[in-house]
Amino acid sequence: MSERAISKVCVIGLGSMGFGVALSLLRKGFRTSGYDINAETLARFSEAGGEAEENPAAAAKDADVVITVVVNGVQTESVLFGDNGAASGMATGGTILSFATMPPQLAEQLAASAYKLGLDYIDGPISGGAKRAAAGELTVMGSGSRKAFAHVRPVLDAIALKVYELGEKPGIGSSFKIVNQLLAGVHIAAACEAITFAKALGLDIGKVYEVITASAGNSWMFENRVPHILQGDYSPHSAVDIFNKDLGIVSDLGRDKKFPLPIASAALQMFIMTSAAGMGRDDDASIARLLASIADIDLPGVPKA
Amino acid sequence: MSERAISKVCVIGLGSMGFGVALSLLRKGFRTSGYDINAETLARFSEAGGEAEENPAAAAKDADVVITVVVNGVQTESVLFGDNGAASGMATGGTILSFATMPPQLAEQLAASAYKLGLDYIDGPISGGAKRAAAGELTVMGSGSRKAFAHVRPVLDAIALKVYELGEKPGIGSSFKIVNQLLAGVHIAAACEAITFAKALGLDIGKVYEVITASAGNSWMFENRVPHILQGDYSPHSAVDIFNKDLGIVSDLGRDKKFPLPIASAALQMFIMTSAAGMGRDDDASIARLLASIADIDLPGVPKA
Repeated sequence: MSERAISKVCVIGLGSMGFGVALSLLRKGFRTSGYDINAETLARFSEAGGEAEENPAAAAKDADVVITVVVNGVQTESVLFGDNGAASGMATGGTILSFATMPPQLAEQLAASAYKLGLDYIDGPISGGAKRAAAGELTVMGSGSRKAFAHVRPVLDAIALKVYELGEKPGIGSSFKIVNQLLAGVHIAAACEAITFAKALGLDIGKVYEVITASAGNSWMFENRVPHILQGDYSPHSAVDIFNKDLGIVSDLGRDKKFPLPIASAALQMFIMTSAAGMGRDDDASIARLLASIADIDLPGVPKA
Repeated sequence: MSERAISKVCVIGLGSMGFGVALSLLRKGFRTSGYDINAETLARFSEAGGEAEENPAAAAKDADVVITVVVNGVQTESVLFGDNGAASGMATGGTILSFATMPPQLAEQLAASAYKLGLDYIDGPISGGAKRAAAGELTVMGSGSRKAFAHVRPVLDAIALKVYELGEKPGIGSSFKIVNQLLAGVHIAAACEAITFAKALGLDIGKVYEVITASAGNSWMFENRVPHILQGDYSPHSAVDIFNKDLGIVSDLGRDKKFPLPIASAALQMFIMTSAAGMGRDDDASIARLLASIADIDLPGVPKA
C-alpha cells in the first residue's frame, strides 16, 4: 500500500512549542501553514517562511495533516471543531495530530468527532520543551490507527526524535502522558522541598546537587530544575500553572476512577499554593521560592523576609 | 606527615550491608574482626576468614578502625558506647567510621563521645545496597576531620567506589544522607502510586516502564523499584520499615527546624500505611501492593480482593 503523499502541513498554536514544531517542518521542506491568536507570533512565523492565516479553518485549507499545539483539551476542541475550526477546512482523508496533554476521555471524543468528518486522529501528547521542539527532537506519546501513523510518519520524523506508538485507540497516548506528568509534578515538588530543606539544614546546596544527582535520590526533574534554584533564575522554562493543569487532570482522573493519589495530591497542593502566592506564570521550580519565603530560608534570588 | 598504619579493622553489624563490607576488607587483605548479635551470621563471617568475637569490645580490641554498620543511631550508640561497647576496646588514636543513617545531632553527639576517649570519628552514611557492599562499591556521604579521612583512606578505598568528603563536622554527612532519603522515599511512593494508577487506567505497565524511564518522569527509584512490581516480587531488597525509619528522621528534623515538608510527609504516611497492613519487612515497592489491594487493581503477584 502506498501512503497518501503530504503536500501541506498546518500548525495551530505557535507558542514556544508550536513555533519550534513549525520551524522543524519548514527546515525539512514541508509547505507549512499556521495560525496563532497572537498577531506578532503569526508575523514571525510568516517571516520564517510559513503561510500565516487569519483563523484555523483558513490555515487548514487543503492541509493533509493538522497539528494542534495549544495548551489544553478545551482549546484543542475549539481550534479543531469550533467556529472557523481547522477540521472544517482540511483535505478529506487528512490526519489530525493533537499534541496537548488532556484527559484521555476528551481525546477519545475529539477522535470520534474527527472520524465523523472522514478525518483520522492521533492522540499524541509531546514532551521535551521548547529547545527540543525547535531542534525537531520531541518525544511523542501517541495512540491512533496504524494507517494514521503511517500517513504522518514523514511529519513525525521531521519533528520528533522518539515516537511511541502505544496503541490504536485515542486516549492511550494521553493516559501515558498523564502518568508521566504525575511523576514529573511530584518530582519537581520533591526537588524543591528537598533542596530548600537542605539549605535549612545549613548544607552547601551546590554540593547537594552534585551528590544527589549521583545517588539513589536523583530524578530527571531534580537534575533539570534544581539548577534554576541554584542560579535563582525563575524565568519560566515551564510554568507553575502548567502543572496545576496537568496534576489537575491527574486528580480528576483519580477521582473518576476511584483511585487514591495521596502523593500527587500533595504535590498539586504545592503548585496551587505557589500559584496562589502570585508565581503561577513563573518557572515551576518556584515551589522552592515559596518554601524559602515561608520558612525564611536564604536561597539565591529570594529576598529574605 | 606519614599516616598511622592500619593493622586491624573491626566491623560491628554483619547484616547484608556489613557482611559485604567485611568481605571487601578481607578480599583486600585487611585483618578483619567482627561482631553480630546473630550467631549464624557470625559463624559465616568466621568461615569467610574473619575474626569473630563475642561482643563489640572484644571485636574492637586493638583495632585501628571500627566500622559500625547497624540499622540506626540508637544501635550505633549502643554498640560503640554501651556495655562491652567497641570504643572501650579500640587502639588509642583509632577512628570510628559510622555508616548508619541517623539524625545529624546524634552523629555530632557520638563524635563528641569518641573525641573524649581520644578517638576520631567519621559520620559516613552509605548507600548502594547489599550487592554493591559485597563488591566494594558503596557510596559514602561522609564528614569528619581531614586527619580522620586520611587515616581511613585505605579502608574506604577497599569498600567504596565513591567517597564524598562533605565537611569537617560530623552531622554534615548524615544531613546529606537524609536529604537523599527524603527524595528516595518520595520517589518510591510516587513510583508505586503512578504504576498502579497506570494499571487502573488500563495501560500496559511494562510499556509504561519503558516509556517513563526514557522520559522526564523518570527517577533512579522508579527505574530500580518498578521491576519488582512488574515481576510481582516483594522479597525485600530494601524493606518498607527502613523508609519508615529514614522518613521518620526527615519528619522529626523538619519539625525541629520548623521547616514544612508536605511531600515527604505524604510519602511517610504511605510507608506507615503499608507497614500497618503487615508488609513492613517486605520490599519497599509494597506500597504498590497496598494501593492495588485497596483499589482492587490487578497487579502481578497481588491477589484480587
